[in-house]
Amino acid sequence: MKRVGLLGCGAIGTEIAHAIDSGKISAKLTHIYDFSKENSKKLVDSLTAKPIITENVGLLAASPVDMIIEAASQDAVRDDILTILQNRKDVMIMSVGALLDESILDIVLDGCEHFNKKVYLPSGAIVGLDGIRAVQDELDSVTLVTTKHPKALKGAKFFESYKIDPDNITSPTVLYQGSAQEAVRLFPANINVAALLSLAGLGSQKTQVKIVADPKTDKNTHEIQAEGKFGKFAIKVENVPSPSNPKTSRLATLAAIECLKKICGTSLNIGT
Amino acid sequence: MKRVGLLGCGAIGTEIAHAIDSGKISAKLTHIYDFSKENSKKLVDSLTAKPIITENVGLLAASPVDMIIEAASQDAVRDDILTILQNRKDVMIMSVGALLDESILDIVLDGCEHFNKKVYLPSGAIVGLDGIRAVQDELDSVTLVTTKHPKALKGAKFFESYKIDPDNITSPTVLYQGSAQEAVRLFPANINVAALLSLAGLGSQKTQVKIVADPKTDKNTHEIQAEGKFGKFAIKVENVPSPSNPKTSRLATLAAIECLKKICGTSLNIGT
Repeated sequence: MKRVGLLGCGAIGTEIAHAIDSGKISAKLTHIYDFSKENSKKLVDSLTAKPIITENVGLLAASPVDMIIEAASQDAVRDDILTILQNRKDVMIMSVGALLDESILDIVLDGCEHFNKKVYLPSGAIVGLDGIRAVQDELDSVTLVTTKHPKALKGAKFFESYKIDPDNITSPTVLYQGSAQEAVRLFPANINVAALLSLAGLGSQKTQVKIVADPKTDKNTHEIQAEGKFGKFAIKVENVPSPSNPKTSRLATLAAIECLKKICGTSLNIGT
Repeated sequence: MKRVGLLGCGAIGTEIAHAIDSGKISAKLTHIYDFSKENSKKLVDSLTAKPIITENVGLLAASPVDMIIEAASQDAVRDDILTILQNRKDVMIMSVGALLDESILDIVLDGCEHFNKKVYLPSGAIVGLDGIRAVQDELDSVTLVTTKHPKALKGAKFFESYKIDPDNITSPTVLYQGSAQEAVRLFPANINVAALLSLAGLGSQKTQVKIVADPKTDKNTHEIQAEGKFGKFAIKVENVPSPSNPKTSRLATLAAIECLKKICGTSLNIGT
């Protein structure tokens, strides 16, 4: 049975830890770290099989685990991914947006090759990455349309530059249309989905993104269109927000749990 | 580098072998078998790195490879999967329709667990299995609508029972609507897609399938609708037929190559 370490004991880390603790994932959570000791302790208290709280990330990376789950932040990916790979641990990354920074992506790719390790990125709040990866070499275009309630977009850099007040949007409004690269600068909350799609497909410069504010929706909706020699994909995902953290979609947590189940299982692996 | 054996040297097996031979997949194809010696020889002749042709499936299963790719037939899965797992090889199965037979599925699941091996099923001619698996526990419904040219459906058992002549279909016509289980009996050519969707989601009795004959289409189209507590997926895949084998979609071959790339690589794994 795989031994797993957890970096980050917030809402998503806690849900993953509980999925392991309940036996849903065939693994043992043996070591955890969060920069907030309180978060770590709260998590340990809620688990039947108690993991060890390490003093720092370095000790988590050096602990006797087979893989580490990053559920902390983009900064954690930036600062700690190399240490983890150097300690010869596989990694599952939740804050995939960090990999849109090419210097971080290079560290990950080089680290995987050099230390013979794997880095896993669950599908997050979208579906169909199995297909996008398969046709990557013959894609002509990939477009993402994200529709959210204006409230869910509040605080984005976009509103500083464009002087639109999200509270005054009364009908579905296209706020942005352009490259994924620029989209994640203006709407950082959308970064994981844009990063996954860019990495699986055409990269962040060629992936087109449209952001729509719809005051009548209670879902986070992502529509993906992809075309090429193989044919066409049209994918629409309407996500219910996660009950424990309304900023993320329930699907993102479920995808992480499923990804881990697949990594840790010795059984049928369904899907590319 | 992983050593790979190939069972079945037809159109798809040959395309996978060429993907390995060209270096697209980081693996070595060392042993192959096909019940037609001619097929095997033709394949060996077309490759730069020549694999050994084994005398029978048993010898392929016992050969010093890490995994075996089944690209032969449902019969091959039925007859040989246990031997392969007993010989402690991982397997990638192309003829996934065979797993709709519960006795075969049980052999695969037990074999994986008992011999600590993995069986991989690429996503075939559909996308989004990453998502379906992730929400499996909270799915309320899964529906598949397959639309093909009447020619592409010709020869199906359905036409024996229902006395419709596919040549006389002049406008889009719903031929079948019901369970996936019954659909694969009446339209065996649709079996892989229905099997993948059933295995990832609600099983073949609860997965709903509709088959439409459209004399105006030149694509094989699959539409998937899935609903549950997580929200909703709507996926539409318009597939160009494979140039080397018009009965399969180009995407199915690309998905197999990508699946193998993921299994054999030590790098970034994008998607659940």
